[in-house]
Amino acid sequence: MNQVNIAVIGTGRMGSVHTRNLARSIPEANLVAVCDIRLEVAQAIANELGIWRVVQDYRELLADTSIDAILIATNTNTHAFIVKDVAAAGKHIFCEKPIALELAEVDEALAAVERASIKFQVGFNRRFDKSFQRVHDLVASGDLGRPCILHIVSRDPEPPPVEYARTSGGMFIDMTIHDFDMARYQVGEIDEVYAMGKVLVAPDYASVGDLDTTIVTLKFKNGAMGVIDNSRQAVYGYDQRLEVFCSNGVAMAENERENTTVKAGGDGYHSARLPHFFMNRYAPCYVEEVRRFIECVRDDKPVPATGEDGRMAIVLGHAAWKSYHENRPVKVSEVG
Amino acid sequence: MNQVNIAVIGTGRMGSVHTRNLARSIPEANLVAVCDIRLEVAQAIANELGIWRVVQDYRELLADTSIDAILIATNTNTHAFIVKDVAAAGKHIFCEKPIALELAEVDEALAAVERASIKFQVGFNRRFDKSFQRVHDLVASGDLGRPCILHIVSRDPEPPPVEYARTSGGMFIDMTIHDFDMARYQVGEIDEVYAMGKVLVAPDYASVGDLDTTIVTLKFKNGAMGVIDNSRQAVYGYDQRLEVFCSNGVAMAENERENTTVKAGGDGYHSARLPHFFMNRYAPCYVEEVRRFIECVRDDKPVPATGEDGRMAIVLGHAAWKSYHENRPVKVSEVG
Amino acid sequence: MNQVNIAVIGTGRMGSVHTRNLARSIPEANLVAVCDIRLEVAQAIANELGIWRVVQDYRELLADTSIDAILIATNTNTHAFIVKDVAAAGKHIFCEKPIALELAEVDEALAAVERASIKFQVGFNRRFDKSFQRVHDLVASGDLGRPCILHIVSRDPEPPPVEYARTSGGMFIDMTIHDFDMARYQVGEIDEVYAMGKVLVAPDYASVGDLDTTIVTLKFKNGAMGVIDNSRQAVYGYDQRLEVFCSNGVAMAENERENTTVKAGGDGYHSARLPHFFMNRYAPCYVEEVRRFIECVRDDKPVPATGEDGRMAIVLGHAAWKSYHENRPVKVSEVG
Amino acid sequence: MNQVNIAVIGTGRMGSVHTRNLARSIPEANLVAVCDIRLEVAQAIANELGIWRVVQDYRELLADTSIDAILIATNTNTHAFIVKDVAAAGKHIFCEKPIALELAEVDEALAAVERASIKFQVGFNRRFDKSFQRVHDLVASGDLGRPCILHIVSRDPEPPPVEYARTSGGMFIDMTIHDFDMARYQVGEIDEVYAMGKVLVAPDYASVGDLDTTIVTLKFKNGAMGVIDNSRQAVYGYDQRLEVFCSNGVAMAENERENTTVKAGGDGYHSARLPHFFMNRYAPCYVEEVRRFIECVRDDKPVPATGEDGRMAIVLGHAAWKSYHENRPVKVSEVG
Repeated sequence: MNQVNIAVIGTGRMGSVHTRNLARSIPEANLVAVCDIRLEVAQAIANELGIWRVVQDYRELLADTSIDAILIATNTNTHAFIVKDVAAAGKHIFCEKPIALELAEVDEALAAVERASIKFQVGFNRRFDKSFQRVHDLVASGDLGRPCILHIVSRDPEPPPVEYARTSGGMFIDMTIHDFDMARYQVGEIDEVYAMGKVLVAPDYASVGDLDTTIVTLKFKNGAMGVIDNSRQAVYGYDQRLEVFCSNGVAMAENERENTTVKAGGDGYHSARLPHFFMNRYAPCYVEEVRRFIECVRDDKPVPATGEDGRMAIVLGHAAWKSYHENRPVKVSEVG
Repeated sequence: MNQVNIAVIGTGRMGSVHTRNLARSIPEANLVAVCDIRLEVAQAIANELGIWRVVQDYRELLADTSIDAILIATNTNTHAFIVKDVAAAGKHIFCEKPIALELAEVDEALAAVERASIKFQVGFNRRFDKSFQRVHDLVASGDLGRPCILHIVSRDPEPPPVEYARTSGGMFIDMTIHDFDMARYQVGEIDEVYAMGKVLVAPDYASVGDLDTTIVTLKFKNGAMGVIDNSRQAVYGYDQRLEVFCSNGVAMAENERENTTVKAGGDGYHSARLPHFFMNRYAPCYVEEVRRFIECVRDDKPVPATGEDGRMAIVLGHAAWKSYHENRPVKVSEVG
Repeated sequence: MNQVNIAVIGTGRMGSVHTRNLARSIPEANLVAVCDIRLEVAQAIANELGIWRVVQDYRELLADTSIDAILIATNTNTHAFIVKDVAAAGKHIFCEKPIALELAEVDEALAAVERASIKFQVGFNRRFDKSFQRVHDLVASGDLGRPCILHIVSRDPEPPPVEYARTSGGMFIDMTIHDFDMARYQVGEIDEVYAMGKVLVAPDYASVGDLDTTIVTLKFKNGAMGVIDNSRQAVYGYDQRLEVFCSNGVAMAENERENTTVKAGGDGYHSARLPHFFMNRYAPCYVEEVRRFIECVRDDKPVPATGEDGRMAIVLGHAAWKSYHENRPVKVSEVG
Repeated sequence: MNQVNIAVIGTGRMGSVHTRNLARSIPEANLVAVCDIRLEVAQAIANELGIWRVVQDYRELLADTSIDAILIATNTNTHAFIVKDVAAAGKHIFCEKPIALELAEVDEALAAVERASIKFQVGFNRRFDKSFQRVHDLVASGDLGRPCILHIVSRDPEPPPVEYARTSGGMFIDMTIHDFDMARYQVGEIDEVYAMGKVLVAPDYASVGDLDTTIVTLKFKNGAMGVIDNSRQAVYGYDQRLEVFCSNGVAMAENERENTTVKAGGDGYHSARLPHFFMNRYAPCYVEEVRRFIECVRDDKPVPATGEDGRMAIVLGHAAWKSYHENRPVKVSEVG
């Protein structure tokens, strides 16, 4: 057997998902250690899964030459410097998104990755959704002609607390980042963005300068145009749809439902809500993205979501904020 | 212009629908007269539509050699003898279903039609529904392989008054007749039926020996099997679906909805009821069936729903009642 | 009976639809005359429908005091001056959209209407679609909370010839006008628009300065935002959808289909195209809008689509063109 | 922690699914051993999952007092005697369906279970499907009124080899057994069955007296009626639907799809196949049914699919065969 030895740094919300997936559902990986500055958090999941090595300081892992790869799922503000350290140690990296909020930090981290010639994958989980992939494949096949209009609907079920918003980079960086990446995955490079937004459902967001409802329009370099429609409050569940309208047809990914039951009565037909939580909706993607990363490390193949992909999503987020503040279309090249 | 001169006998519920359609939507026809034993009923619709000739006794129409065809939409118990008279007068006939409740009467009427060598079409409106036709064409094309299982769901929104049930021929004759014809239209001749039924929603139906909920299974001569599922009370609307499952695929006609609006809230997705009334659901079919009849008269083509079709539906209805009463499968040949 | 006497001016494509509807399906109206500068066109439909009076010059109708109302369905460039004449004659007006391409002309026509104190309705047929109305009613009821994001998809099946584009006012006036009106109908007054567009499917459109694929974003005065997504070429049919996303839910109108048949085979499920033609898709709306107009005339009620509605759609069209040419958001107040 | 110690006997197709689920996804269980008469098969999965104890003869496990429960997933013809041995050893049992093909064997096994006073659950996985459960809950709530018509569609994607059919008990026992159980789960006890069937897609099935296409109608003791529609060849995937039509509405479970992508082109709309394989479609149910069993053992609660449920499904299968052979409705009480 040719397993990849991997350790997880950060076993919080996302990190624990990855840890369980690595332990249970990715036989190509050998999960050798978990790390969290809250040692008891790492210890708990290690106990649950029978992982023998638990550390509090990730630097302990770097010297261990038996470790091939590291999955980084710590707080966003620590991603960049951990990436630099891990890259310096020559280990392959799977890094949760975003790489960093500030472009300078992103660039420093990616420079370190470059120097180390390691695999570096960013956690854009939605690229691994079977329905979005099917749309991508249909469009990429050329059978539908040229892409004309991309439309992404991406709405969270409920707003996170305003404290979260304070340090998240704001809606365009925190939330739209996924949609910017999806837009590039489906249609290609973006030339210009125009962003509008409002606080309509979470009044306290105004106090931290964030938004809860936004529309971003895109001009792609290939002539196509796009719209990203985001909200922090879709009471009917986590609304995740997209549509690529082309000169010779259209490909759409519709929502998944909690179940397929339909009830009909005197007042019409009723069917189920959408899955409420992103971890639920995208559960198979979290497995698949890491499985693919492990495979790329093992077989020395290019990763499916690169550092450049991670960087461009941040660039687009900043361009959107600039567009919003200046109320004008902004060229992506103005930002980075 | 080469119009067909037609008169309508019986301008009640169905007759008034046909009368309006002939006047407004079937330019191939020239509606020259209307007739009803309730003269004022005929007069009212004649006024509405600007029809000049109104008669109370249909026999007045028979001598008029300018009249090419007659549409009969009187009470069921008068169909057969009017057919005989009209046939004797050599006029083409469109007759509402059923031709008669008793097979002997049906046979007499059809013998008169035979002797007169006229066109005779029975009002099996559902054969003219675009979705059912599309299913028929898909199955008939052979692309789906051989038919294996037919399933028809046909449920009324609410039971008619028990007085109606008293003279209607009962569920298998009154209601299932349409489905027997649809079964033959979609899959072919039927060899054997087995029927079960209950009074579950309209308790007073028991007092007249009728049923409100029934299942009839079919064995077709070509080896396929079928199920007809009927109810007199679908509170969510007039439920009209069918499915022809074949060795190489399936063709289904789904329900139409009152509108395409979908509302989603915290408790899931809500969409519209089905159309409540058969006249609403099948409105275009009532136009099309008569338009086709007019065309067949004008161009001397075979009609799309024949006297034999009308007869077989009655035979199957009686076979179903026999099966129900004896609780055993009944060969169609036992009845007629 | 209290019928409204009405004449139709212009019996071309749209005019003949209205003429047939008035004659066949709107008993509240008495269609007394038809008029077309191509007399033979008017005569043909008059023969078909049994209308006795046919004129070539619409001015002949103005002196006839028995005529209560006029439906104008001539070429767009004649709407405004015919409106002025008819208004001066004191007859109520149903005018096909757009009132005129230039705002000055619109304003002159509306001033004449104002002076005459007549009913004036503009032909925004989509306001009468049962599904769009249901969305409107759901949103207006307040049950869904406040509107946040409107999304309209409105795509034609195929581009009209470039000659048509030459005089149509271009995409934002010719096509988006319906969507601007729908946006105002669903969510309210618009404060600012931003428009982008391309020639992606009909290359010769570039030669006349028109577009075939456009996205317009909207900021409403009530804080909501919107997107209108238009294309001249949806090969799967006439794509007409909308969605009003609100703080407490969402209301959507989905497409109608040519039929409800579904076929499934080894390669998955197949269902029908959309209706190909707008006259087909919106057939019941053309009846209903004129029926409502007749009713408003008869009962002296306010019309459901006013001159101001017609004017605002033109203003928004010009604002969109300005935004497109200057590549910046444009306040509606900059235009009119 | 209060885990239940469990061993798996039989690690073939179904057994390996259960083994992996126990090891990875059911933390309430402690999987202590696997057993297969093909020792190398058991050893392989034990290696994969890190299970220490592997035996070839299940009797070795019976003496081990640390083992609380046994999951039996061996060949059908061995279920009954293994059940008797395990019951005699006083261990709780989860047994794959069917308990046995012959009723006498079933009864002996259940008598042993009875004597031992152990938990005994049968592997009716579909009872644990979220959509079927939702239908059950809607119907059981009484909000839909009384059940009138149950309809189950249950079609396999392709026929198993005829060798399989030779020993499977035939269509009504092998395949319809799941649907009989579902019928009882949704609506209640069955009084009478009528079965028809044909060989339409797998001609060699005729040589072993089996069928590939069947319809079974049901009369329930509570007055409701039902239909089970089975085929061994649905080329569009594993077709699993049901509908409970009630006096005050209907509850339906629709199919799941491979993905939610829709493509539209000039020839209409295309969407994905159904999942092809039952293990795929019902994957979460296989976890949930065993998790529930473990919970019932741990907390001494009644199991959700009892020995009596297992027995009744076999009784109904034999009644269906009897009905088919004699072409008449058969009372369940005639068989057992």
